[in-house]
Amino acid sequence: MSTNFTGESLFPKGEKNDAFAQYFMGTSYLSMLSTEGVNIGNVVFEPGCRNNCHVHHAGGQILLVTDGYGWYQAWNEPPQALKPGDVVNIPAGVKHWHGATKDSWFAHVAIAIPAEGASNEWLEPVTDEHYAALA
Amino acid sequence: MSTNFTGESLFPKGEKNDAFAQYFMGTSYLSMLSTEGVNIGNVVFEPGCRNNCHVHHAGGQILLVTDGYGWYQAWNEPPQALKPGDVVNIPAGVKHWHGATKDSWFAHVAIAIPAEGASNEWLEPVTDEHYAALA
Repeated sequence: MSTNFTGESLFPKGEKNDAFAQYFMGTSYLSMLSTEGVNIGNVVFEPGCRNNCHVHHAGGQILLVTDGYGWYQAWNEPPQALKPGDVVNIPAGVKHWHGATKDSWFAHVAIAIPAEGASNEWLEPVTDEHYAALA
Repeated sequence: MSTNFTGESLFPKGEKNDAFAQYFMGTSYLSMLSTEGVNIGNVVFEPGCRNNCHVHHAGGQILLVTDGYGWYQAWNEPPQALKPGDVVNIPAGVKHWHGATKDSWFAHVAIAIPAEGASNEWLEPVTDEHYAALA
């Protein structure tokens, strides 16, 4: 799968996501669109880039896909192919990961659902074997 | 100003926004992308359509512009021209309106900032005279 999207996203791409690089395979970019009331970030993934498995405790997260093609997978569930216009509602407490396909850039807006005691728990990476088997 | 955008938006367009039609001039469409944790709606405005002046009490709202061209205006401030990729942070308590330009469809995602006692207060329409003078 390929797309004309070459890494410029609908919303500002921002800088290399150095703060979270330890939780990603490959290079991503982060631009915070809102940091008051609700945290809203635009995340751009280069082809092959994905985040490690993680859990949003208490709050949950909503993804609005704006550009390119990617994957979302919740633990013990089939991977879900993502394209522009898709919306993913990630419930609190669900182990999951998301990222680009092998061949495409990918961008989504991530909206953190505010909640008392909300936190993120980062877990193991998505292995190359698991990722390569996606199609 | 015109655009290729002909009323199909990045996110699902949904049905005619009958529930709020009394607070709009012209026809809009509403699709709720999330109703748990954070209310997120995709709003599509036909050319010339705009909402009445209104105030978000307590919570505020964030607009993510996805398609077409429009306007945002806060009370006693100059109108702000909007295009895809723009983000508007509307503070609680500020009287304002938003909508399409005369010649273009317009779509934005609206994210309601959750807050204790949040409510919307709807006020007077934006007159044809005021709207026609925008450029």
